[in-house]
Amino acid sequence: MKNTFGNNVSITVFGESHGNSVGVVIDGLPSGVEVSEEFICHQLDLRRPYGKISTPRQETDKFTIQSGVYNGKTTGTPICITIPNENTKSKDYNYGVARPGHADFTGFMKFKGNEDYRGGGHFSGRITAGIVAGGAIAIETLKNKGILIGTHIKKCAGVEDNSFTDYENEIKNLNSKIFAVLNNKKGEEMIKNIENVAKEKDSVGGVLETVVTGIPVGVGEPWFDSLESVISHALFSIPAIKGVEFGCGFECSDMLGSQMNDAFFVDNGVIKTKTNNNGGINGGITNGMPVIFKCAVKPTPTISKEQDTVNFITNENIKTEIHGRHDPCIVHRARVVVDSITAIALCDLLSQKFGTDWLGEK
Amino acid sequence: MKNTFGNNVSITVFGESHGNSVGVVIDGLPSGVEVSEEFICHQLDLRRPYGKISTPRQETDKFTIQSGVYNGKTTGTPICITIPNENTKSKDYNYGVARPGHADFTGFMKFKGNEDYRGGGHFSGRITAGIVAGGAIAIETLKNKGILIGTHIKKCAGVEDNSFTDYENEIKNLNSKIFAVLNNKKGEEMIKNIENVAKEKDSVGGVLETVVTGIPVGVGEPWFDSLESVISHALFSIPAIKGVEFGCGFECSDMLGSQMNDAFFVDNGVIKTKTNNNGGINGGITNGMPVIFKCAVKPTPTISKEQDTVNFITNENIKTEIHGRHDPCIVHRARVVVDSITAIALCDLLSQKFGTDWLGEK
Amino acid sequence: MKNTFGNNVSITVFGESHGNSVGVVIDGLPSGVEVSEEFICHQLDLRRPYGKISTPRQETDKFTIQSGVYNGKTTGTPICITIPNENTKSKDYNYGVARPGHADFTGFMKFKGNEDYRGGGHFSGRITAGIVAGGAIAIETLKNKGILIGTHIKKCAGVEDNSFTDYENEIKNLNSKIFAVLNNKKGEEMIKNIENVAKEKDSVGGVLETVVTGIPVGVGEPWFDSLESVISHALFSIPAIKGVEFGCGFECSDMLGSQMNDAFFVDNGVIKTKTNNNGGINGGITNGMPVIFKCAVKPTPTISKEQDTVNFITNENIKTEIHGRHDPCIVHRARVVVDSITAIALCDLLSQKFGTDWLGEK
Amino acid sequence: MKNTFGNNVSITVFGESHGNSVGVVIDGLPSGVEVSEEFICHQLDLRRPYGKISTPRQETDKFTIQSGVYNGKTTGTPICITIPNENTKSKDYNYGVARPGHADFTGFMKFKGNEDYRGGGHFSGRITAGIVAGGAIAIETLKNKGILIGTHIKKCAGVEDNSFTDYENEIKNLNSKIFAVLNNKKGEEMIKNIENVAKEKDSVGGVLETVVTGIPVGVGEPWFDSLESVISHALFSIPAIKGVEFGCGFECSDMLGSQMNDAFFVDNGVIKTKTNNNGGINGGITNGMPVIFKCAVKPTPTISKEQDTVNFITNENIKTEIHGRHDPCIVHRARVVVDSITAIALCDLLSQKFGTDWLGEK
Repeated sequence: MKNTFGNNVSITVFGESHGNSVGVVIDGLPSGVEVSEEFICHQLDLRRPYGKISTPRQETDKFTIQSGVYNGKTTGTPICITIPNENTKSKDYNYGVARPGHADFTGFMKFKGNEDYRGGGHFSGRITAGIVAGGAIAIETLKNKGILIGTHIKKCAGVEDNSFTDYENEIKNLNSKIFAVLNNKKGEEMIKNIENVAKEKDSVGGVLETVVTGIPVGVGEPWFDSLESVISHALFSIPAIKGVEFGCGFECSDMLGSQMNDAFFVDNGVIKTKTNNNGGINGGITNGMPVIFKCAVKPTPTISKEQDTVNFITNENIKTEIHGRHDPCIVHRARVVVDSITAIALCDLLSQKFGTDWLGEK
Repeated sequence: MKNTFGNNVSITVFGESHGNSVGVVIDGLPSGVEVSEEFICHQLDLRRPYGKISTPRQETDKFTIQSGVYNGKTTGTPICITIPNENTKSKDYNYGVARPGHADFTGFMKFKGNEDYRGGGHFSGRITAGIVAGGAIAIETLKNKGILIGTHIKKCAGVEDNSFTDYENEIKNLNSKIFAVLNNKKGEEMIKNIENVAKEKDSVGGVLETVVTGIPVGVGEPWFDSLESVISHALFSIPAIKGVEFGCGFECSDMLGSQMNDAFFVDNGVIKTKTNNNGGINGGITNGMPVIFKCAVKPTPTISKEQDTVNFITNENIKTEIHGRHDPCIVHRARVVVDSITAIALCDLLSQKFGTDWLGEK
Repeated sequence: MKNTFGNNVSITVFGESHGNSVGVVIDGLPSGVEVSEEFICHQLDLRRPYGKISTPRQETDKFTIQSGVYNGKTTGTPICITIPNENTKSKDYNYGVARPGHADFTGFMKFKGNEDYRGGGHFSGRITAGIVAGGAIAIETLKNKGILIGTHIKKCAGVEDNSFTDYENEIKNLNSKIFAVLNNKKGEEMIKNIENVAKEKDSVGGVLETVVTGIPVGVGEPWFDSLESVISHALFSIPAIKGVEFGCGFECSDMLGSQMNDAFFVDNGVIKTKTNNNGGINGGITNGMPVIFKCAVKPTPTISKEQDTVNFITNENIKTEIHGRHDPCIVHRARVVVDSITAIALCDLLSQKFGTDWLGEK
Repeated sequence: MKNTFGNNVSITVFGESHGNSVGVVIDGLPSGVEVSEEFICHQLDLRRPYGKISTPRQETDKFTIQSGVYNGKTTGTPICITIPNENTKSKDYNYGVARPGHADFTGFMKFKGNEDYRGGGHFSGRITAGIVAGGAIAIETLKNKGILIGTHIKKCAGVEDNSFTDYENEIKNLNSKIFAVLNNKKGEEMIKNIENVAKEKDSVGGVLETVVTGIPVGVGEPWFDSLESVISHALFSIPAIKGVEFGCGFECSDMLGSQMNDAFFVDNGVIKTKTNNNGGINGGITNGMPVIFKCAVKPTPTISKEQDTVNFITNENIKTEIHGRHDPCIVHRARVVVDSITAIALCDLLSQKFGTDWLGEK
């Protein structure tokens, strides 16, 4: 399906950048999960633009829970959350100009000129607000089961962050940070570099690294619902993501089998691995180690530098300069989207094995 | 679903390494596509071990089309192909020993000791024979529509292959090569290095690069059925794959927006892009340029070097040396699996937009 | 999936009777279909209570199209429509009292006391407003392709309506009637009988008969996506429906093969059948004749007569009299829900065969 | 999907009447369920023709379990069973002649002349052998959880069978009977009537009634995965079925709410209903009472009487007499198909709520 993902637990997104509202329906979550509007707010805030390195468009992301929550808890029936669009400046956009790196042209070809092109329409990053709102409840559901998700900016604007050393504590810290790095100094360098690039009317990308702790052994299915398959499916839904790798990922192509293989050992009766090059997954199924993956986030395609392109209505070569608001970097904003969609995918796979009822038991 | 993938066109795999047979059901392909048993054989041969750099297990991969083909053409109803297992040496395997990098332990935990563990059982790479047999017909279906798929070994055993320069001709050449490189000399180096690693009882991985030409503009869906989502879902089903990237993938994290963005231009009335850093995809939808992606294939986990591990029945730390047949490299064999599963995923997405009927029209 | 139905074209419903709003997301419809808010209103009006034979709860069913429509046309991206709940009297409902024939008890068991029980919550017939709103656009889509759907009250309160004689004209008439009968006199008798039953604090059910004209030959799939399978799946989603039959349905059990079989003949070059006992479907696939089916609608379970039941919190036998507003008959209101969900199911099956693009071409 | 049904537990069928073999892949069943080849044989025997009232085609239905079973137990991975076609007389069939009531014409239109038309091809009732073979294992899985399924011939050839009085014992008896009636004398009358109809070169249909005991409260989902939706979807896949009703079904249209409503009461601490007009389902969800439904099976369309029809190749009106083997009644054979497909649907819904692991626990 197109805008729906998942089986036992599923998410449906809708909305356009300059339409009435964007939103989400999340279905299949267990009943009885406490829903904190504050936490949803917090998560939406993490997705929102931040300081100089982001677009000046500052929406408050007021949202309405239309259904599925009663007395502060999930009812077990579909949760619809709508987030009205405000502060939309439609005049900034020129129909027919294919912004390079954007979906203007492909959207036009797919929807035959009927697409709501304003502000990127349904292709806008704004749609991810729905994923974040719905994902917040999935994150809470997992937290109740002792499963934590955290993502940091592994690399951005030429600067590398530290590596994880103490997952659980670092995850908790990351989840309160707007610019999620393990090493704050590295974060400041990144921000400085982003600001410099912004002055050049250009943009940068980066790499996000995610870790999931507390996930039971045996989750995921062989072949088409491997943990990697399901999570990558979810991640590549996020428009800016162009690469996904698990464990040591592409590096494995330079390793020997004897280096790549994670040796098992018994630690106080629990089977663990000494290294975690496979990212906590063997044969598509969790092995009890933390699940680790990375995403490549491309530089924001919207830049104010002059670019060559076409007008797809007149079929002419033109030049374009994109004025108006845009982010020189969205890596830090994509972080919470990655956490959210990962939580939803994991809820789905967990309930397949253990059942929806289990997912709701404390 | 677990062992089924796709909606309009779907594939179901079944089988264990040492069971009766492995096989595939491919459903939803249009009627009237010519099915060449010779081509299926050819594809299965590409997947089979090759020379010194592969396992001595040499099965002939005789297959039977059980259904869905009549008078040499697809009927439009499900095609089941079974491939009997022969020459299986069950005595080589010790139940309870968790081979590092393998699914022995996760399979045991998931299936509670009921798994057919012999030779990796349902987790064995042998299951990909079904994908290749079914994929052969999907590849033929696409060929009829002018869509070609080709994959080369971009990197293996420390050697890099050339880059594509002339897609259509290079694809045709690749598809007849057992060891698919663009530069044969580089291929020979790779093989030499693999043989050396094999002598050290070790193994290597690599990177495969795939290109799809002739695909119409507008294929793929925004968000959850983005071309990247659907193809990565399919690719990560292949057990050894630990990373997938589209276009310039992870490199994009070191690029500026002005470098990454692919400028559009009009070429004889057709809209194209000057570069193809986005791999032919904008907003999850094809833009008419070739679709390009890469997969990281991990080194074969089965090595004969001594390794630390556990016996998950006795919960003891042990050492293991895996004797018997195994491949020091499977990158070259994975190539045809990548082509096959990509073809199936594309047939599914194409028929969503254009319909099953269109997919069968010449 | 739970509250989502369909593959290429899909519908997701959400909402509770006394929550914020009920609504729908309909996805996969082609772009460029004209969306008339007036027609959506008209359809919602057909679902709303009517005169003495319905509940005094009179909501205006004001709705908001949140997404997916731009310049009065579908954009091809998901259409979300929300319908706020107004005029809700929560005090009418006693938690713990299992109203016979209702989902109070099963909802409690499924959702473990977290369900929004007010007014039936997510089980309320009010959720069908979303189906009707979304279905209106599917109905318009089909109309553009020459496919018409019409339903009449075949039987209600002991009175039988006429049979169809002139499908296309009768469908047009039915679609403008609030109480959809072919013979108005029969309709008046039904209404009189319903009013009498209402005075007795009781309720009645009935049978709806639906016909679809203009559907091409070859739609539907053998086995699990037979036209009967997909349409019955959709119809049985409507809470009050307890039976579905195609063509002559259960009557076929009293017929001989020679009576049941529909003889084919050539009529001006077009292959038709003389009778239509199979309801336009052979082997799960349309044969070009009108598709015909019937649904049994049970009597409204909410009656004000005293009934025996239990309190599922205290686990005691009790007696209950349900006061407040309720319908002595919902057959006439269910009609437009049947049309709507049928339209959605047909859009899905048609786009599977012909593609989404075709569905949007005029 | 076309020939695949189910999410957590799914079934895929393949094959044509005169192809290599028919078969099934059943996926998602828990590991560790004992698989008795004898029981599969027994179930296949119930589906096979019987005495004078069936076709003289007597295949032994030898089957091969290709995968998914090891040491006599399910492994938890897909189970593929193939059943070779033997004793096929292809010369009996004339391509182009649209047998009334059959899918010859619709199959031709759908598959454009590429269909394997011999013996009905993929539309043949023979495909149900795969459903029965796979269903046998689903039935065993449910039996381990205390859930029993039984079906009797409620009506056939003008004779009505008794009603259920003692579910569990009657189910056990039915499952060992080839002609499944509660009252053997009624069965003999049915058979006599069928034989008489056969002499007239005609055929009869009937009604099957199914009961499921032991199913927990709370199974099924509101709206699109209501128990009725999922089971009717499965049942209408069986080609001859033209009607499905739950509880008192179509009769409800002649009842008052006060008659139809099933009063709850507490029986030794367990909540039950006094009547079961709703067939054990409220709001699409099981209420703990036995689930009861009926199917209308149409008279076998293949009759040897002369019939009017067309040749769809020449587009001419013709007359046809169908010689060769065929059943004057298939109601008794359809019984085990109903049981099988019901078991698969229930396994799917149960594992959604409770998880696959639960389904395998004893």
